[in-house]
Amino acid sequence: MNGAVEFPLDLAELSFRAAGESLVRRSVLPSGVRILSEHVPGSRSLTIGYWVAVGSRDEQPGHFGSTHFLEHLLFKGTQKRTALDIAVAFDSVGGEHNAMTAKEYTCYYAKVQDRDLSMAVEVLTDMITSSLLDPVEFENERGVILEELAMADDDPADVANERFFEAVMGAHPLGRPIGGSPETIQAATRAAVWEHYRANYRPQDLVVTVAGAVDHDVLVAAVTRALALAGWDLGQYAAPVARRTGHPAQISQGDPVTIVRRPLEQANLLVGVPGLLAADDRRVTMSVLNSIFGGGMSSRLFQEVREKRGLAYSVYSFAPGFSDAGLFGMYAGCTPAKAGQVVELMLSELNRLAEGGVTADEMKRASGQLSGASALALEDSDTRMSRLGRSEITLGEFVDLDEALRRLALVTAEDVRRLAAELAAGPISVAAVGALDDDVFTSVLSAARR
Amino acid sequence: MNGAVEFPLDLAELSFRAAGESLVRRSVLPSGVRILSEHVPGSRSLTIGYWVAVGSRDEQPGHFGSTHFLEHLLFKGTQKRTALDIAVAFDSVGGEHNAMTAKEYTCYYAKVQDRDLSMAVEVLTDMITSSLLDPVEFENERGVILEELAMADDDPADVANERFFEAVMGAHPLGRPIGGSPETIQAATRAAVWEHYRANYRPQDLVVTVAGAVDHDVLVAAVTRALALAGWDLGQYAAPVARRTGHPAQISQGDPVTIVRRPLEQANLLVGVPGLLAADDRRVTMSVLNSIFGGGMSSRLFQEVREKRGLAYSVYSFAPGFSDAGLFGMYAGCTPAKAGQVVELMLSELNRLAEGGVTADEMKRASGQLSGASALALEDSDTRMSRLGRSEITLGEFVDLDEALRRLALVTAEDVRRLAAELAAGPISVAAVGALDDDVFTSVLSAARR
Repeated sequence: MNGAVEFPLDLAELSFRAAGESLVRRSVLPSGVRILSEHVPGSRSLTIGYWVAVGSRDEQPGHFGSTHFLEHLLFKGTQKRTALDIAVAFDSVGGEHNAMTAKEYTCYYAKVQDRDLSMAVEVLTDMITSSLLDPVEFENERGVILEELAMADDDPADVANERFFEAVMGAHPLGRPIGGSPETIQAATRAAVWEHYRANYRPQDLVVTVAGAVDHDVLVAAVTRALALAGWDLGQYAAPVARRTGHPAQISQGDPVTIVRRPLEQANLLVGVPGLLAADDRRVTMSVLNSIFGGGMSSRLFQEVREKRGLAYSVYSFAPGFSDAGLFGMYAGCTPAKAGQVVELMLSELNRLAEGGVTADEMKRASGQLSGASALALEDSDTRMSRLGRSEITLGEFVDLDEALRRLALVTAEDVRRLAAELAAGPISVAAVGALDDDVFTSVLSAARR
Repeated sequence: MNGAVEFPLDLAELSFRAAGESLVRRSVLPSGVRILSEHVPGSRSLTIGYWVAVGSRDEQPGHFGSTHFLEHLLFKGTQKRTALDIAVAFDSVGGEHNAMTAKEYTCYYAKVQDRDLSMAVEVLTDMITSSLLDPVEFENERGVILEELAMADDDPADVANERFFEAVMGAHPLGRPIGGSPETIQAATRAAVWEHYRANYRPQDLVVTVAGAVDHDVLVAAVTRALALAGWDLGQYAAPVARRTGHPAQISQGDPVTIVRRPLEQANLLVGVPGLLAADDRRVTMSVLNSIFGGGMSSRLFQEVREKRGLAYSVYSFAPGFSDAGLFGMYAGCTPAKAGQVVELMLSELNRLAEGGVTADEMKRASGQLSGASALALEDSDTRMSRLGRSEITLGEFVDLDEALRRLALVTAEDVRRLAAELAAGPISVAAVGALDDDVFTSVLSAARR
């Protein structure tokens, strides 16, 4: 048993047994490449991810959307492989492969059978190191990305979510949409995306994580060979790029109320306040709070809004944390005529939590929910692969299940109430999409601010 | 090794080793209740499903949407448990629990750790046998379902899909939307839903399937005890309700072109023809065809529509099969100005498949994709639980991985071409949602029909 294991950037080799029977190993190559694996006995498949700690928040004006644009282009061909070759490599073994661009990282991943590890390493390495960013492919992909943005714009929950981040985060880079806007994508140049690629996809940026049926030594040899073949200079010493540090940013709220008027059946509502950083010690308290407040069918929001009143089909809360900021949000989709009532209910439930706190029963239930869900999630190599990536990039430590449960057990009802009080005192932002009048939330919000 | 194992309705006990190391066991109780389990060594969790072979297609006029309405109500309280009790039971162990209503079945399921099996059996049994359908809860839930329908109506891909089924299936009951319409839900009475409950949730209708960390004898004892406690007469002999039989229905196409005009960024397009029944011997050929044609990033549709031309972000084909009918469909989301071009491309690709057939490379790739994806899917207890349910309800036989691969190996390129020719000769239906003119597909379709 290890509890929490730190990941120092200058430590070449580290291995430890995580809770249960899995073995985690971590290697830092002299070039700064980091390779982490978690061997899960009995597994016949694996999930592999290539991570760089760069996301939409790191983009400079004039480059908005370039991280996501680049992510698309890495699938479009290298010096050795066409786009079709890349697709065929994974499709022909029935593997899943994809990528995601987030606000603070980009990850290219694949899930394959154990025998396909070396193929996955070769192809992902080729994409990461040797993409052509061919000008013709660049123009085709611009069209694809514009369609992706158009699809998101036709999804009212997506639109509400983007506007909600803008509202809570204001001018902070975390407030920007990940994919940019149609205008920035129309204006994007190959030169800018190429520059982004060269600047951020270097040995010291790269983190490779694998979970499942994997042997660490085989993995390290495969990744090293593939990177060397691609011409990366692995003999050149470089310190890995440090993880994101967690000094809280100054957040200034954007518009407190954003209404996107559309002729829809439902109003999509998001209400919230600034929250906690990803590495905040109170993250576990936030998980407990979120579980009790809006995390499942037994949560307060679900019971009050859906079960007792039938006002919504989908209603929940969420609390994403980033390196220097976070937020706490509540979502519901309801009929436009009830939008004011639903926002009022959400805010009054938050106040009730802040003032009345939580019951012992609720604490016990949240603890069971979080520990049970953590155990279930570990059945999945995807989850373990992601956990390794987050541990390396965001947290700088690996917290195993036993340690997570120990920290969970330390959270008190008073911790939860105090955090709720802090949230309830925050500046409230509302973002809504639907057939709504401009003043639909005016009286609710002025009452809440009294 | 067993290959395909038949599930005779009058056989009390059956057990066999499926490909790999898992053990499948099936018990038919005298009352007609069927219990199937697949023990997967090394697993620490399980997925459990309670199935009845009744879906939206079985509803009579005046009852449209009642299957789905009932599914919601089973979460709303029994003689022993309130809605909150049910939610708390699963939430407090971190389990996932939900239900789905399909066109030909309804399934209530949960994923829990192995130690929570008896809780899951008790609560699911209570829901299935002893729901109150309380009149006050009924009214609240009417509101929730109306919100669910409103949410679906705000999702253009959902709307296109519903209209596409109507277009291909015409007046056949499979053409109806699963959830009913706002009008039928507004008009639904508790008496009608109660009648539906009493008529379809009987011992001879019930199929319980579990996959993962499960001991069959323990499972059978737990289900039997819970059903007896609920007052079900398990001593009364009843033959299990036979699986759905597969005589092909007469399908008469609805409107060949359906356009739902909406002020959206994208046009959501569905184009297709009638397809194969779920139990058709050519289902494996259809899987190969679909893999080559529109099943992955290397497929023809993806390459032609997205990779070469940048016309869409999401583009694929699909081929759902039901007991007496099926369909083959192609989907793309694109800018409205290109809608005609995209439909033309889809149809010309289908014709090219019908006329030119497929290459040996494509056959090999499809075989690798389907076999690899099947192997990966088996890592998931959800997939195995569903496979048991479908085997019992739809197919009447269990096909293990080895047998599936043997059948796959028998499919020839000529089989695929011949099936493509059959599809290409079918009556084409188009359903589209977006900012489109009424005649946007007129010339494309008249050319295709020449």
